[in-house]
Amino acid sequence: MKCRVCKGEAFIKLPAHNAAFCSEHFDAFFLRQITRTIKKYAMLPPAAHVVVALSGGKDSLTTALVLSRLGYKVEALFVDLGIDSGEFSFASRQACEEFCALHTIPLTVYDLRAEFSRGIPEIAKRYPRICALCGMTKRHIMNEYTLTVGAHALATGHTLDDMSASLFANLLRWDLHHLAKGLPVLPSEDGFAKKIKPLALQGEKEIRAFAQLHGLKPVEAVCPYAKEAKFKRYKAMLSELEEKSPGLKRAFYEGYTEQVHRFKEKTARPPRVTCAVCGLPAAASPCTFCRIWRNA
Amino acid sequence: MKCRVCKGEAFIKLPAHNAAFCSEHFDAFFLRQITRTIKKYAMLPPAAHVVVALSGGKDSLTTALVLSRLGYKVEALFVDLGIDSGEFSFASRQACEEFCALHTIPLTVYDLRAEFSRGIPEIAKRYPRICALCGMTKRHIMNEYTLTVGAHALATGHTLDDMSASLFANLLRWDLHHLAKGLPVLPSEDGFAKKIKPLALQGEKEIRAFAQLHGLKPVEAVCPYAKEAKFKRYKAMLSELEEKSPGLKRAFYEGYTEQVHRFKEKTARPPRVTCAVCGLPAAASPCTFCRIWRNA
Repeated sequence: MKCRVCKGEAFIKLPAHNAAFCSEHFDAFFLRQITRTIKKYAMLPPAAHVVVALSGGKDSLTTALVLSRLGYKVEALFVDLGIDSGEFSFASRQACEEFCALHTIPLTVYDLRAEFSRGIPEIAKRYPRICALCGMTKRHIMNEYTLTVGAHALATGHTLDDMSASLFANLLRWDLHHLAKGLPVLPSEDGFAKKIKPLALQGEKEIRAFAQLHGLKPVEAVCPYAKEAKFKRYKAMLSELEEKSPGLKRAFYEGYTEQVHRFKEKTARPPRVTCAVCGLPAAASPCTFCRIWRNA
Repeated sequence: MKCRVCKGEAFIKLPAHNAAFCSEHFDAFFLRQITRTIKKYAMLPPAAHVVVALSGGKDSLTTALVLSRLGYKVEALFVDLGIDSGEFSFASRQACEEFCALHTIPLTVYDLRAEFSRGIPEIAKRYPRICALCGMTKRHIMNEYTLTVGAHALATGHTLDDMSASLFANLLRWDLHHLAKGLPVLPSEDGFAKKIKPLALQGEKEIRAFAQLHGLKPVEAVCPYAKEAKFKRYKAMLSELEEKSPGLKRAFYEGYTEQVHRFKEKTARPPRVTCAVCGLPAAASPCTFCRIWRNA
């Protein structure tokens, strides 16, 4: 296989794009793809200030590095969940710190245990749906932080594999609430920062290659609470289909983004109140975050 | 496992319904299910005259037997495609003839070779997309026949497995044309008979059990032209998901039937003309059927 651009030895073959690239031209191709995604969904104006939610995994590190190289004013936020088991939080934090130091990206660590004298493990004892609670916690902190620093948007490392698997799950259940909000950009609203997913059209294989090419050192520890069996199954199935029909995943998800209006209801949204503790919009006051973490 | 009704030994376990039944009560359950489907989608008024498209397979034989037992005036139509290889058409025809004789259901055989001096194999030489052409041929004949005898509807044996796999395929491609028409009932229009799929909410396992219970002898020969690899893969995947989450397939397809309006366009349909040969509506005159089979 030869590089599509320079005809040199190929570093990666991308059947979905019917192309192969050497490492240099793959790098350029990858950046061009993200640039197009950002433009297509109006994610960021040039040189915008953006907060990247870092987890220490390859997807969020890639998001931060790409946005930084595309000239955005990137800062990173890591939420230390205080999960000691398997050194999960410690190792993740270290991966983020090393990455940010190397690429001179300012990093803020929000340490749950330092803020509230307890981490996820203490909460896990009381709540059966710990992944949902942890997700809520991270979303709250990231949203609040992004609003506080006045950044244009909060970027997360969700990939095409994540987006297409969620889409599949939501279609299987006809979950209209989530089907209405599956775009890779969620606009800012009063009390909600704009959220963007710059890797939404990039597959695992490309991201893995980019991370390898740039010597990224993502954390290898896995969250001891993680149990996403269903989601992993959906991902595996779509990847199996992708094998036989390269480009299927992207056509599925990108096609959906053109059709998302079909899932939006004309009806009014449920009313929101303002949380008396944090001042952010919520379904009830105090909001779940303040109730759980601030004992409000 | 005990029968949900009589507590006798269970003949079948249906995890999707969280139930098990002895053979007698499974039979009653199965008929009740079809009755509900017919009612839910307004398929047939009581005692209506219905043409069942028989192929010789277990699904179409089951459809004919169930509708007959539910008191409809059933007649069957078999299209002999003239596929000699592996005795496919011969064996299928024989299975239909035996079934109809045993259950006193009037059978009409439409023999392509008798009508047009050639069958599918002769056509197959000229056309690469033979499955599409064969489908068009069967649909044309069945529609014309149903209109001619003035039946209320044409029933086909499509199952939940067929419907959910088609739905999945159409969603993967966001094929809006087919997503708009995926209901188990298509209303009659000028030149188009009403089409119904009474087994649309029944899974393979139930249908297989019903066929076994009633000693149906479906044809075992497989069409030598069949190559539905993709469709089979989708079916297998959904069945794998169903294993882990009983009822998933039905929730997926039934959920879609509640949401189908989202895929219907407000725009006008493309204009239709009347075929000068057969007098039925078509995209152009002569219609594809008359062009191919009647050399029009």
